[in-house]
Order: sequence, then structure tokens, then C-alpha cells
Amino acid sequence: MEVIRSNFKDNLNKVYEAIEEADFLAIDGEFSGISDGPSVSALTNGFDTPEERYQKLKKHSMDFLLFQFGLCTFKYDHAEEKYIMKSFNFYIFPKPFNRSSPDVKFVCQSSSIDFLANQGFDFNKVFRNGIPYLNQEEERQLREQYDEKRSQANGAGSLSYISPNATKCPVTIPEDQKKFIDKVVEQIEDFLKNEENESLELEPCTGFQRKLIYQTLSWKAVVLYIGVRKESCESSLEIIKAGTMRYPKGIHVETLESDKKERYIVISKVNEEERKRREQQKQAKEQEELNDAVGFSRVVHAIANSGKLVIGHNMLLDVMHTIHQFYCPLPDDLSEFKEVTSCVFPRLLDTKLMASTQPFKEIINNTSLAELEKRLKEVPFSPPKVESAEGFPSYDTASEQLHEAGYDAYITGLCFISMANFLGSFLSPPKNHVSARSKLIEPFFNKLFLMRVMDIPYLNLEGPDLQPKRDHVLHVTFPKEWKTSDLYQLFSAFGNIQVSWIDDTSAFVSLSQPEQVQIAVNTSRYAESYRIQTYAEYVEKKHEEKQAKRKCTEDSWKEMERKRLKTQCTPYVSQSRYYCVNSFTGTSTLGKRSMSPIQEETGSDDMEEGDVQDLECDHTDSCAESLPDGKKRAKKFKKIKKEQVPAGSLTSSSTEIFEVPETW
Amino acid sequence: MEVIRSNFKDNLNKVYEAIEEADFLAIDGEFSGISDGPSVSALTNGFDTPEERYQKLKKHSMDFLLFQFGLCTFKYDHAEEKYIMKSFNFYIFPKPFNRSSPDVKFVCQSSSIDFLANQGFDFNKVFRNGIPYLNQEEERQLREQYDEKRSQANGAGSLSYISPNATKCPVTIPEDQKKFIDKVVEQIEDFLKNEENESLELEPCTGFQRKLIYQTLSWKAVVLYIGVRKESCESSLEIIKAGTMRYPKGIHVETLESDKKERYIVISKVNEEERKRREQQKQAKEQEELNDAVGFSRVVHAIANSGKLVIGHNMLLDVMHTIHQFYCPLPDDLSEFKEVTSCVFPRLLDTKLMASTQPFKEIINNTSLAELEKRLKEVPFSPPKVESAEGFPSYDTASEQLHEAGYDAYITGLCFISMANFLGSFLSPPKNHVSARSKLIEPFFNKLFLMRVMDIPYLNLEGPDLQPKRDHVLHVTFPKEWKTSDLYQLFSAFGNIQVSWIDDTSAFVSLSQPEQVQIAVNTSRYAESYRIQTYAEYVEKKHEEKQAKRKCTEDSWKEMERKRLKTQCTPYVSQSRYYCVNSFTGTSTLGKRSMSPIQEETGSDDMEEGDVQDLECDHTDSCAESLPDGKKRAKKFKKIKKEQVPAGSLTSSSTEIFEVPETW
Repeated sequence: MEVIRSNFKDNLNKVYEAIEEADFLAIDGEFSGISDGPSVSALTNGFDTPEERYQKLKKHSMDFLLFQFGLCTFKYDHAEEKYIMKSFNFYIFPKPFNRSSPDVKFVCQSSSIDFLANQGFDFNKVFRNGIPYLNQEEERQLREQYDEKRSQANGAGSLSYISPNATKCPVTIPEDQKKFIDKVVEQIEDFLKNEENESLELEPCTGFQRKLIYQTLSWKAVVLYIGVRKESCESSLEIIKAGTMRYPKGIHVETLESDKKERYIVISKVNEEERKRREQQKQAKEQEELNDAVGFSRVVHAIANSGKLVIGHNMLLDVMHTIHQFYCPLPDDLSEFKEVTSCVFPRLLDTKLMASTQPFKEIINNTSLAELEKRLKEVPFSPPKVESAEGFPSYDTASEQLHEAGYDAYITGLCFISMANFLGSFLSPPKNHVSARSKLIEPFFNKLFLMRVMDIPYLNLEGPDLQPKRDHVLHVTFPKEWKTSDLYQLFSAFGNIQVSWIDDTSAFVSLSQPEQVQIAVNTSRYAESYRIQTYAEYVEKKHEEKQAKRKCTEDSWKEMERKRLKTQCTPYVSQSRYYCVNSFTGTSTLGKRSMSPIQEETGSDDMEEGDVQDLECDHTDSCAESLPDGKKRAKKFKKIKKEQVPAGSLTSSSTEIFEVPETW
Repeated sequence: MEVIRSNFKDNLNKVYEAIEEADFLAIDGEFSGISDGPSVSALTNGFDTPEERYQKLKKHSMDFLLFQFGLCTFKYDHAEEKYIMKSFNFYIFPKPFNRSSPDVKFVCQSSSIDFLANQGFDFNKVFRNGIPYLNQEEERQLREQYDEKRSQANGAGSLSYISPNATKCPVTIPEDQKKFIDKVVEQIEDFLKNEENESLELEPCTGFQRKLIYQTLSWKAVVLYIGVRKESCESSLEIIKAGTMRYPKGIHVETLESDKKERYIVISKVNEEERKRREQQKQAKEQEELNDAVGFSRVVHAIANSGKLVIGHNMLLDVMHTIHQFYCPLPDDLSEFKEVTSCVFPRLLDTKLMASTQPFKEIINNTSLAELEKRLKEVPFSPPKVESAEGFPSYDTASEQLHEAGYDAYITGLCFISMANFLGSFLSPPKNHVSARSKLIEPFFNKLFLMRVMDIPYLNLEGPDLQPKRDHVLHVTFPKEWKTSDLYQLFSAFGNIQVSWIDDTSAFVSLSQPEQVQIAVNTSRYAESYRIQTYAEYVEKKHEEKQAKRKCTEDSWKEMERKRLKTQCTPYVSQSRYYCVNSFTGTSTLGKRSMSPIQEETGSDDMEEGDVQDLECDHTDSCAESLPDGKKRAKKFKKIKKEQVPAGSLTSSSTEIFEVPETW
């Protein structure tokens, strides 16, 4: 189902319902670009640490726009033994919702745009009819704006009701506006004198002029109230007095917009009841405007609050973009990112990581989404039984619609089902259907595939990352004319090597034997054109340089700049923490304890299918958006988790068979 | 006429022809955004100096994409007394043309995109079918790439011909590739032994593998040539020897791409004649590829080389973007920008500036393009007689298509014609038609409207800018809570004031009387919450701060950075200078002398229509692209200019009537 700005509100409940009833969700994003870095090889070096990779992606990928979001919900029908699928393809665009709303700038990368254009991507749909969104901070600011406006206008929270104390001093009207304001005041005088008309529409005028009108009317009301009369405004005062005396609760002033987008002020005579009705109407309208502005973020909130298992393929960038765009700017360091992620997506599963891990690794050659989907239709796998829900269009995997986010989410879900079911064949007795709540798939939770990193298969969201030794790795610097072949030649004596470019003049070279490392370093001692050091030396020197730099005056400046930026970010971070505490603390901390790979490795017993089935717990039964509900669910989740903990051996029971290895 | 990638080549000659025959050209651009600055008020302060404004626009506007370019050519038909118009609406997109081409990143501003979306702008047409382009540096690099490839392969400039000296040392083949390369060599052996087949297609493989194949074949040829035999490759050598002996001029190796975008190597046996034919074919293909890649820039080159009068409405950003995108990154400072501009667009006229100047200023209230076009249909103006050329669609000004670049260029042209003709009414006898070559319009040449600058009406491209006194201006700093009304109040004693915000905590305030300035400064001496200084003091302090900063160590670092960046830019600058010297030096330097406002002011005599007519010179008779032609034209232009110079009084003769004032 295609969801755009014009049908978003009508279909939002359908989306909520689909999330609520689902066994698991699959997501995918399409972006306006991938990397604004100097080169792909620099962005994805084979020996990046997870922290380095996070920093690179944060720096070079977050200015792009996630402009299509695919969500596919899967619900298992036990009677029919098949999944019922609902697919949503959302078009996203940060359309400014009013004059003071954020005017988002985003970057487009020509190659990505060209790639999507060749896939038939509809940019007009994005830009003309994309659903807007706000992150949490923007939502908070907008809410504050409304609150502030409301509190500025005193009395029963009335925003536009002219009442005492609204302005504390007389308005200074610029010379060139005096004539205009005088004319307006005269008009209002006539209107108030005259009993026939209930409301008066002023001519459209500029924002500044409207402000002057509001201020003038407010001040005149004040002056009237405290009984002060100033020579200069005697005549106008008389009238306002007449008006306010006839309508003791004052006059109602509001700004409306014409069809031509011109703004004008309407002044009405109102009694108390009418005034309240209008204010309530206005507040309801404001709430709706706020909801409209939050837009697509409401879907992401629903996904987050559902606590359901969220599947993606090679999903690190999808997760980073989703958080960055709809929650908060990404935090400064990786550990904070993990914290925020555990709040927004308490359970993630990356099908690329799953397919690259035992027992799949040996039987799956190509883990790209399209190839994986094809492979998983063949023995020893079986194509999953999945049908579109009534009223939802079905995708045909024979006619590929790859790189439409909804379709990609759909086949990601198919891949997950096939692989999960395959795990059932290892049980005794074997089982055809393995549910999304099965213990069998827990070893794959919250580990995101790390592209092109040689010795760290995944980013571990639930604890510290793997730290491979890298004692067979050399860091080499050389003239910028050098090519890969020059490095092969330099190391030709050492047999098979692997080269990972860092930049134009340096690369990591991994040898097949750690013993060769020292030999290589020694033989290079007197080389002039190039320099070789061990990985450990390189890391040490890098660290030292960092320390030394900090002492330089020029860097104290940078440091200040960094701190300043950090300070600016603090609200977001604490914001996300706040969110976390309120809804998912239980999930995230307990998650850390019960699902860390270390615990997995201590597991020893094979588990029986019966146990697994019993442990399938429906701890994700609703997806309401509001925080109180989220809180409730978090508590529920916590409770269930606690109940699981005593069954210690079971928690890690599946790991002997399907453990996610530290390296491969 | 809509011009997109697919019909660009077919219509390019039509475009050239239209430019060549035109009396003047009108242009307009649509961008993916306007400003990524903090706020519009900060970007366009009312007291910016031209240098400041240039720096701001350069910094905050050049990352957007000019993605629609409107060109409208106008040719006067003397017999029919009407203009014949040809309108082109080009869609522009930097589609990467191959794997090593620049992958342009550009910024989109949501509000601008939303605005264009509401106007029905077709983003799919831009992204799916936009015409690519290269700036001059990119074009040079691409040309070099082709040349390098060609020179790498020796012998009659053959790129892919395997010949002696191609590789100087044996190829080191990585362990994991040895099997693959051995297999390929075996295949080639069989092919060369066998007389039946004329060519051999290898399996598709990776770029690295292709490189290894090329290197292996080259080196084997070298080894054969210099008669060295190495043990390790004895067997393969025999075969290559056999092959090269049978085909003494070698074998032809080239990489082709399949329908599936997979690249594979084809090896053919060729004789000398066939080889030459293939190489010529290849070179012709390369030249065509190069032309395709230069793409839309060829149109801009044609406009530049034509030397024709180019009209735009509020065209500073259009000019900056056009130069930045299709020529070279904008130079560091304004004077260099003026120099480059005089090369690319030797004669510009801004209709917004013209309409804001005497004799139009008094009778035109609103100079926005749409309003101006309407106004110029009414007395004392007359709607111009303009018809579309045969085969070109006509625009209907009744059903506005504003913000389509082609349409905007069209009505800009209409505005110019109406205003130019109006100038004819001041002549005796009055004249209905004033041509684009008339002396009457020269006072408006090369002065670009400066938006929202209070006292400097235009950027003067032909010399130093106006330097208004600003002795009635104050610089005020204050708490960030202050609003415009607070400033009005603070200065309420001084009558009418104007406020120009700089940022959250400072603004320029201009008083109506310079005498009040010192009073304001004096009375504020002991104020705590705000600070007032004169404009002169502010400029002085800013200058001092700049100097002081330079002494700081932290700034010496910045200075280094600045210098480094400057060095990086140098090639572009010298590039543009080079271009300049080759094609338009005459125009730009002479232009400075003959058209500066100072000279204009010294003009004294009214001129007679006859003189003007005689002076209309057709110095812009062709628009060929190549530099030699441009050179020729530049010389011609120079000659004509020189002939004009002796008629000194005439050069400035129209200025008494229509002089462009220094302030208004």
C-alpha cells in the first residue's frame, strides 16, 4: 500500500493495527545518497573499528534524506500455517508546515539519485506528496510554541483574546506605519459603535503590521483597564471603551489566511460562552496541526513502542537514519548510539548478518538481498507461505521491484522466515515453522552487519564490540602514485595478502601469518619511499598524536569548538535518555544481561522444541503511541524477562548450534 | 521548447542557431534551494557591502543545484516590426557519465522544493532525464584521462593495442588470482593457435582481474620483444610468440560492456589497417563521449562566446550559479568574480535594476517579475510585439507559468523590450523601437540588482562598487530577547528609523538625520543592556579585530587553512583567467574604462537618435564554441570598441537622461 501525504491520516489506524497484530516487522529505507565522503574505500576501510565506522557514517551519511520508508508487517496464521503480510510504502518529505517551522536542507548524491531514477523511483511523489515529520526536539519546540502563544494571551488560556495585562507598555509605532494603524483603529471604532455587524475583517497586511495591530489593541485594553488616559490616544480610547463596555468580556481577534495565502485579521464581538467554544475549537485545531507536523514520526513511534522484532537487511544505515531523522540527531559516540537504539528498536535482526553466520554461511554464497531471496527458495530451504492481507496489494517476487522500500522490506521478511524455519530442521523432532518469538533466533538479535569490515562481523548493540587481535596486520604509507599492484609486489614474498585502502597514501595490509609481520617491519627499516609499522604501533601512535594535539594551542581552540557543539547536542541526548527511562529501561538493561554473546558462549544444553514453544511469550501485544502506554508495556516486558531469567540454561540453550561467531 | 537529456544532442544546433541570430538573450535559472544560512535576514542585511553580500551568497547558496535553465532568444524582424522569440527550457542534472566521473552532491532546501512542487515542477524530468554538464576543470581532467589512456598504450596512439614497452616489469599476481589468470592465458593460447576465430570474448570479470589480464598480456609481449625468457612463464610465452608472429602488429584487446552492465575483455587478431580503423573509431567515440559529458555547459559556452547582451531579472544568483556550475568554482573575492563574469557574460542587463532606476522608478511600484510584466503592458508603456518562431511553442502570459525557467526568461525579455522602447519616447523625434544595441540602454549594462541593500542599488561588474557614507547608521548590540519593537522604542525620540538585523543580538539602525547619530551614541554611554556605536566605529573595530586575530596562534592555524584552500583553488582561478585572456580580454578591460559610472556622470551632451542608430554595431555575429573562434571574436569586439572610444562624448551621451544613480 502506497502511503503519501494526502492519504496518510486516513490510513494511520490501519498502520497501527498492522503493527499491533504483527509477529514481526520488516523495514527498509531509500535515501537521497549514501556517502559524501572522499571515497567509498575511505568510508569503509576493512579494518575500521566499530567506533570508527560509526563516526564515518554519522559524519558522511546523515545529511542525506530518508525519503522512502518500507514497512511490512507479518502475522502468522496458525490454522492456515501461513503468514499474512501487510506492506506499506511511505513517501517522506520534510515539507515546512508553517513559516516558523524548520526548513530542512538535505543533500542528494547524483549517483544515488541516478540509480533510483533508473529503477523508476517517483521523485515527484516524494517532493509533491511526501509525508512530513518532526524529530522529538522539533516536536517539543512546536508544542512549546503553541503553549507559549496560549500563555501569552491570558485568561482561560485564550490565545487571541484581548485582555488586561497583555502588554505592559505603550506600543511604539514607526512613523511610516502610523497612518496605517490610525486607519485600522478608526475602522474598529466604527465596528464597535455599530451594533449590526458581529465581526470585522481587516485588509490583508504584513506580519509586522498585524503585530502592531495586536499590540495596539492590547495596550488600549490595558490602558482602559487601569484607568490611565494618555493625551495621545484619547480618541481611540473612547471607542475601545465603548466596545469593551458593550462586550464586557472583550473582543476576539484572530488571524486567518485567505485562499490566496494572504493573512488578515478578523475582529469579532463575543460573549464568554462563544469565546470558550472558539478557544476549544482552536486548541483542537492546534493539536491536529501538531499531529500533522509530527506526521510520519508517529509511525516510527508506533514501531518503537510496539517493542516488536524489527527485521532489516544490512540495516545499520537504515537504523541510523531512522533515529537521526525521526528521533534525535545521532549522539557523539557509539555507546550512546547503542543506548538510544535499544530504546527505539529494542529488538533488531539483520538478515545479512544472519545469512553470513552459521549454519547459513556455508550454504549461502551471495548475501545481497536479491540473491539471498532467490537462494532461500531452493533446497535445503523452502519458500515461505506468505499472503497479502485482504485489501493490500501483493508483490510478485518474479517481477522484481527491488529498491522500492516496501518491496525490499517484504523480501527481507521472506528471507527471515525461510532462515528461521530452516533452524527448525535442527530440532528433534524437526519443526517446519519457527516463530519470531522462538529462542532459536535470539542469538541473531541486536547484531547489525558491518559492511566490508574483515574481522568484525557485526556491531553489537547489546554490549562492547568484538576486539580482534589484528596481529597479522601492517599499516603501510607510500607515495600517492602507488596502486594496489605495487603493494602486492612489495609483499610478494609473503604469499597471499589483503589490501585495505585508508587514503591515497596509506593502507592496511594483512598477511596470512602473524609471524611474517615482524619480518616485514624489519626488512622495511631502511626503505625510503614507504614505511611499514604493525597495527599495534599504528594504533599507539594515533593515540599519542591525539594526546599531543590536545596540548597545542591551535587544538585547544578546536577542543572548545567541540565542546560547544557537544553542549548544543546535550538537550537531544538527555531527551533520548528521558524517553528511554520512560518506556524501555527494562528492555535495554535486561537485554544487555540476558543476550550478550559472552553468556551465549557459556550455554551448554541443547534445547527441546517443547521448551522453546513454551517460552514464546507475547510481550508485544499493543503499539499505542503515548508514553504512559509505552511505560506499561516496558514494565510488562520487564516482568516477563524476569520470569525468564531463572530458566538460565534455556536462555542460552540454542547458542551451541547457532552461535554468532566472533570472526569468520 | 523543452530540452532534456534524450533530445539534447538533436536540438543543440537549433540552440546554437537561435543564439547566433538573436539580438539579445534572456535567461533564468531554477535552483534546488536559495540559502543554507542561519536566516534570510542574516543572509541579506540591508547594510551589507557588495563584498560581504558576495561572500554570503558564495558561502550559503552555491551548494544548491541549478536544475532548470531557461533561455529565450529574441530576434528583431525590421520588416514586420516585431520580435521573433525562441524559448528553451533545459532540465539539468549531473548524471555521472562513468565510474570515475565526479559524483556531484548538491543540497536541497525543503521550502524551495515545496515551492516548486506547488508550481507543478517536474522533478522526475530533472532526475531521470536532466542534461549532464562539466565545468572547465572537470572537462580538462576528462580530456586528460582520455589522453593519458591513449599515451599509455604506445604506437600510433593506440589505447588498447598490446605493444612493446607497455609494462616495464613482470606482473605480480596475487595468490588467489593465479588460477584465474592461468586459465585466461590458456584460453588465449588456444585462440591464437587456432586460425578459425578472429576474436575471443573472455568471461565478465572484476576491474582488478581485467587489469591483471591487460598487464599479463602486455608484459608477455615485452618479454617476447626484448628476447628475455623467464622460467616461470615459459609455456605461455611460446603461445604469445606464436600469436604475435602470426599477427606481427599484435593483438587488439578491449573491454566491452554487456547489456547486463557486466564488463568483459575481447581479444581480436588485427592487421595494421584494421587496427588504425578501430583506433580512429575509438577516438571518435571518445570525442563524442566527451561532448556528451560536457553536455549543457556547451550551451553556456555558446552564450558566452556569442558576446550577446544577456538579460535577467534580479540575476545575481543566476549569474553566480551559472559560472559556478558550468565554468569554475567561484573565486575567493569579489574583484576576481567580476573579472570572471566579464569573461563569461561580457554584457549583462538586469531588468529589476532597470525598473528600479530612473526614468522607470517613478512609474513602477512593484518590480517583482510578474507584477513588472503586468505593469509594462499599460500606459505609458506598450506591450511588445513578440511572436514565437515557427516550430517553437508559444507562451500565454494570461495563463501564468511563472517559475518555469523558460517562461520566466521569456517575460524577462518582454519586460526589457517594453522598457527599452519606452526610452525611445525621450528622443526627438521619439522612436517606438529601441534595439538591444542602442546606446540608450548602455547605462544599465553590467549592473546587477542587489536585493535588500538599502543604499547600494547594484553590484557594479565593471569597476569598484559605490561606497555610501552611512553616517546616519548605528550599530547596536542587545540581549537576544529583543525584538524589532524594542529597537523602535529605544530610538523613539529620533523619529523614523530603519532596522536591519545582523543576527540575534545585533542590528544596524539607520536614523533619518546624521546629526542624531552622535546624540544616540552619547546617551547610550552608560547603558548596560545594549551598546551603540557609529557605523564607522563598527567598521573600524571589525577591521582591528581581524588584524588582532591574525596574531593569535589559533588563527595562524586558520590562516594556514585558508591559504591551503586558496592554493587548492588556484588552478581554477588561473583557468578562468586563461580562458579570459584567450577570448575576452578586450571586452573586459576596455569595458572597465568605457562603461564605469564615473565616466557616465561626466557625460554631458544629449544624443540624437541618428547617432545611436549609426553606432549599433553587430559585433556579435556568431556563437561558435571553440576557443580560436572566441579569440577571433574577442579581437573583433576589441577593434570595434577601440573605434568607439574616440567618439568619447557619445559613449556617455545617454547618461544625463537615464543615468543609474548612486543611491535612491
